[in-house]
Amino acid sequence: MVLCQRECTAAAVYTQNKVQGAPITITRENISNGRAWGILVNSGNANTCNPDGLDVARKCCALAAQATGLRPEDFVLASTGVIGQALPIEPFAEGIPALVPALSEGGSTLAARAIMTTDTVEKEFAVEFTVEGTRCRLGAIGKGSGMIDPNMATMLVFLTTDANIAPDMLQQALRREVAGTLNQICIDGDMSTNDTTAILASGMAGNAPIIGEGEAFDVFCAALREVLVRMARALAADGEGATKLLECRVSGAPDESLARAIAKSVISSDLVKAAMFGEDANWGRVLCAIGYAPGAFSVEHVSVAMQSAAGQVQVCKDAAHLPYSEEQAALVLAQDVIEILVDLGQGEASGIAWGCDLSYDYVKINGDYRT
Amino acid sequence: MVLCQRECTAAAVYTQNKVQGAPITITRENISNGRAWGILVNSGNANTCNPDGLDVARKCCALAAQATGLRPEDFVLASTGVIGQALPIEPFAEGIPALVPALSEGGSTLAARAIMTTDTVEKEFAVEFTVEGTRCRLGAIGKGSGMIDPNMATMLVFLTTDANIAPDMLQQALRREVAGTLNQICIDGDMSTNDTTAILASGMAGNAPIIGEGEAFDVFCAALREVLVRMARALAADGEGATKLLECRVSGAPDESLARAIAKSVISSDLVKAAMFGEDANWGRVLCAIGYAPGAFSVEHVSVAMQSAAGQVQVCKDAAHLPYSEEQAALVLAQDVIEILVDLGQGEASGIAWGCDLSYDYVKINGDYRT
Repeated sequence: MVLCQRECTAAAVYTQNKVQGAPITITRENISNGRAWGILVNSGNANTCNPDGLDVARKCCALAAQATGLRPEDFVLASTGVIGQALPIEPFAEGIPALVPALSEGGSTLAARAIMTTDTVEKEFAVEFTVEGTRCRLGAIGKGSGMIDPNMATMLVFLTTDANIAPDMLQQALRREVAGTLNQICIDGDMSTNDTTAILASGMAGNAPIIGEGEAFDVFCAALREVLVRMARALAADGEGATKLLECRVSGAPDESLARAIAKSVISSDLVKAAMFGEDANWGRVLCAIGYAPGAFSVEHVSVAMQSAAGQVQVCKDAAHLPYSEEQAALVLAQDVIEILVDLGQGEASGIAWGCDLSYDYVKINGDYRT
Repeated sequence: MVLCQRECTAAAVYTQNKVQGAPITITRENISNGRAWGILVNSGNANTCNPDGLDVARKCCALAAQATGLRPEDFVLASTGVIGQALPIEPFAEGIPALVPALSEGGSTLAARAIMTTDTVEKEFAVEFTVEGTRCRLGAIGKGSGMIDPNMATMLVFLTTDANIAPDMLQQALRREVAGTLNQICIDGDMSTNDTTAILASGMAGNAPIIGEGEAFDVFCAALREVLVRMARALAADGEGATKLLECRVSGAPDESLARAIAKSVISSDLVKAAMFGEDANWGRVLCAIGYAPGAFSVEHVSVAMQSAAGQVQVCKDAAHLPYSEEQAALVLAQDVIEILVDLGQGEASGIAWGCDLSYDYVKINGDYRT
């Protein structure tokens, strides 16, 4: 449970999957007024494709309300885990009353750990920023790991800030910044049924309320972006079975959305992912994945390089082979963080996407996740 | 090399990837008149992203012409293998003159074997059919294995028939039947740069030429479909690292294209594929993949069953869990061919797609394919 001392401005974005978990329906209802006090999350069961899922979800909110003295509709609700298994109410009936006295200002790391499924590390990030002279803070916890190919929002990421910002501007900021961050990661191409990214803004920093576009809004968006980029990288790096974080940076594109689509296509390719696991500079697969990205563009002047802490190796220019040292490429690809640099050579726009390699452990984890 | 004793009617469909191999450009040119005598294929090098690729491809056709006494433009040309490596002409200069005297009516299996890359078995199918009282034959060889998610045509599949059919009707038949067969398979979601499916029709059966729609055309299409379905199943079953063939049959859909899209979405899901490898009846992942299929439809009345030679197990009704025996499910999923049956419960249309499971060996093969 995440709880604020006062009512917050609230905004959220959700999965675009046509199968959606019951908590998403409830959260949509609950924050339709742009307000919430807290967040309640369970891990291990997605509460999706359950005939009584909505009923169980409502009961969870009622239990949270009872334990906190608030109303059921004051909560953002989320679930993550197996789809289609009955979710008993008993653990909530026992657990929620115990959660409330345990709430603490230092509890974020425990909350980040509590929402993990196949994640191997907790993800928690925060920044400070200044809105018109007032110091504000923004923090996030998140979980990811598998079934990840977001379209509009992704996985479970919960953000909190003490900035004072109107609900519509909060929703606009979240939607805008998720597009270039969380929506640009892919673990396995499977868009989850429960993806939710929600943000609560308490206003307790005391800044003049952000009620429209302008410098204050831009500062807020920049802070949000910074936290979301760090979260996106952490989620990709901890993808199921991952041994490497892949970052594809596309430049020289005619527009940003095409640059993002191409970057996403490259980091989503099973063949690119497997090549990176094998530390093989097989750039032909990168070209192939560029070529099937949606949209109309020319591949004639594409160049590709691979880069890491060990240096950079140029492998392709004008869509053709560039002689390079396989030894140098092996050194570059032996690192844990690999950047794939693509220059389309036909414009000024750029875009980034994040993913991970495809390893034996991805197959192992998902060959036997449920049982 | 595949060669006919006379000039044939020719048609082909190609990859939709924006990066395309040089042989595709040449084949488009060569059969723009709807005619060809033969097919020349090499395996091991895709002749793609090579600065001199077109030049090498033209030289290959010239060598084939020289060795056969035909013209360079009488050949369908195809290459499969690594992208972006120089393709030397020497092996062609040596090999092509040796191929011609070795041509034989019983050579199809050798040709099917010669075009393999990471395929483990050759794929070769044929049928006989009767067009207005005249016995005709149609056969195919194909290779697949990885980098397979066709959009319009797929991999390398070469069909030959002695039926007499006009070029435009041959192209129409090929395009129509590929849509529900080869385009409905997915190994890894990576659309190749070299996918080509070509058909040569010699007319040597002596049937009255098929020059329009009608019964004769329908009989021809049915024969083509039968061979392509068998080829699609064989290609999916021999996907890189595959231990199981997956067939998803969607029924109760409002229209055929939606049924096909949903079936394709299910067999393309890494999570469904990994669950099948683990013989785990994790139907929630099937629902998830249905839910992110493109198109507008309701998931409210979806039911799912899994079926094999060992029987059938119903796992989901009205998008919710249906009690079933895990023991029975384990028996069903232990088989080599698994059918995933989806009933959308909102119409009469149906569609099928084929894929394979995701195994450790897929990662192994693709972690180190090039080097």
